[in-house]
Amino acid sequence: MAVKKTAKAAKTKYAIGIDLGGTNVVMVLVSQDGKLKSDRRFPTEAEKGPEYVISKMAANALEIIKEAGLKVSDVKCIGIGAPGPLDSRKGIVLVAPNLPGWKNIKLKAILEKKTGIKTGVENDANCAVYAEKWMGAAKSFDNVVGFTLGTGVGGGIIIDGKLIRGASNTAGELGHTIIEMNGRQCGCGNKGCLEAYASASAIANTAKEKIKAGSKSMITEMVKGDLNKITSKTVYEALLNNDKTASEVWQYFAESLASGIAAALNSLNPQAVVIAGGVINAGDRLFVPLKKETAKRSFTAPFNAAKILPAKLGEFAGAIGAAGVVLNEGDYYGIK
Amino acid sequence: MAVKKTAKAAKTKYAIGIDLGGTNVVMVLVSQDGKLKSDRRFPTEAEKGPEYVISKMAANALEIIKEAGLKVSDVKCIGIGAPGPLDSRKGIVLVAPNLPGWKNIKLKAILEKKTGIKTGVENDANCAVYAEKWMGAAKSFDNVVGFTLGTGVGGGIIIDGKLIRGASNTAGELGHTIIEMNGRQCGCGNKGCLEAYASASAIANTAKEKIKAGSKSMITEMVKGDLNKITSKTVYEALLNNDKTASEVWQYFAESLASGIAAALNSLNPQAVVIAGGVINAGDRLFVPLKKETAKRSFTAPFNAAKILPAKLGEFAGAIGAAGVVLNEGDYYGIK
Repeated sequence: MAVKKTAKAAKTKYAIGIDLGGTNVVMVLVSQDGKLKSDRRFPTEAEKGPEYVISKMAANALEIIKEAGLKVSDVKCIGIGAPGPLDSRKGIVLVAPNLPGWKNIKLKAILEKKTGIKTGVENDANCAVYAEKWMGAAKSFDNVVGFTLGTGVGGGIIIDGKLIRGASNTAGELGHTIIEMNGRQCGCGNKGCLEAYASASAIANTAKEKIKAGSKSMITEMVKGDLNKITSKTVYEALLNNDKTASEVWQYFAESLASGIAAALNSLNPQAVVIAGGVINAGDRLFVPLKKETAKRSFTAPFNAAKILPAKLGEFAGAIGAAGVVLNEGDYYGIK
Repeated sequence: MAVKKTAKAAKTKYAIGIDLGGTNVVMVLVSQDGKLKSDRRFPTEAEKGPEYVISKMAANALEIIKEAGLKVSDVKCIGIGAPGPLDSRKGIVLVAPNLPGWKNIKLKAILEKKTGIKTGVENDANCAVYAEKWMGAAKSFDNVVGFTLGTGVGGGIIIDGKLIRGASNTAGELGHTIIEMNGRQCGCGNKGCLEAYASASAIANTAKEKIKAGSKSMITEMVKGDLNKITSKTVYEALLNNDKTASEVWQYFAESLASGIAAALNSLNPQAVVIAGGVINAGDRLFVPLKKETAKRSFTAPFNAAKILPAKLGEFAGAIGAAGVVLNEGDYYGIK
């Protein structure tokens, strides 16, 4: 006799994903089979302190459930992507430079109490990479490495479909692979990290350095001589206008990022490398030189085995990935 | 009623491990519970071609079994650590620079035919690292990264107790992490790889460069002015004699290796990093500066989580690891 499915077992479960940023919170409601049902975004108002922010997240979580016509019992878990360093196993934010007052905040425990929903907390870059593997650019792959380019460079590693966390849950910091021993000062205190060459801020810094050293560029006019106003966007706009200095800056950026990607290809031999962050909007202007420089710097076999792909999920990646990883790897977060 | 163990099921099984080098073959007989029963070593005589070398390995394998008072049926498998590139899944050596005539050699199939014992072939550096995790320096750990320092720099990555092979079975090439973008030419064709700074040959090269650039050193006398005769041993001996140039070369070597280790710590957060190769005989002279430089270059949490250890198994590591990985991960090699 066939086992009869009960209505309860057959019913789709949902998860809420939250990307907790210093400026905004992005929230999504997703089904366990990886479909985005709804989303919302609201200012973090971090200056009001952790208690306020967590209450606001809880209230929004309960609202998004209600609006979707669901009950709290339809939601299996909440996943939160938070800036590190954090204790992801216990769900504690240890310190968060962009969130004043967040020190040893028991985010998991507090949110569980306020919502009645099991919660897991994961590093935000890990979440963004996991999202691309679960629902985005690397959907069909189980071995994925991802780089998130912003103010810094974050990373995530997925092997055999699972997030790699390491011995003390800090794995995936691909932005702090050294590509220039004793090179540029990195925000982490070390020198020569990928982050110091391939973040959006690093692009601006390279331009600033070059102009200070005497390179002529339309960038100087664009920022009205105030070199501190240079951003990666300024550089990109100048690049589109065939500015020679901007083109050199961009090439250096591509070579730097390629060096980090090559290290990941040679050591981990993934099926896909996903690049996330505003800079991917440059499209072929980024991916053509990036692939060329990566090919030069890696072994042929792992280069050929890996697709180098732009991320697909944009600003929702962190929230989607937080939901996905807590849904799929619940055991780690103490969720059955 | 308790299930009665048959004599057959209870009997210890064995494996043969072979490390196929360009000069020598090292062979071991180990029990499945990780005990070394016997070993032998013989010249490869690579110039006599693959057929000869494989026959010799097969004859020695059958002899080592007989000498131990065992039958062929007591041996579950043969594991061979071979220089790459190879197709480890199929057991084919694609090319082997130090073994003339080895091109697309079906090592697994031929050895199975000659011995009647199921065989698996794995990258030699992967085997050496696996051995340290199975029976050596990293025995109590499941998340291990290893670097083998010799003419080149090999590597291996073990996560959750399993060897990481990647999408096309080339993972673990930690010697080709870029530590100096656009730096020294590496044998792999790329520039600035760890191998070009931290191999035994690289130590000699750094000394040669420094002396050519005008540094005074007792090394020049030691090699009677023929700088091409400098080896890592010459540098080490000069270091023990407080030679200033040798000390700078050694420090640069430690900083370079530390940069590669830091990248592994930050990205993989292992419990142990094992360093293998003749250079570890330097003991504290290596490990003290190495740990200091690694601490500078990595995040505190993954640095504190990892022990940086000298390998224990010396010249037997490759053979022991080959036996171990084929015994424990037989499925991958098509062995039940």
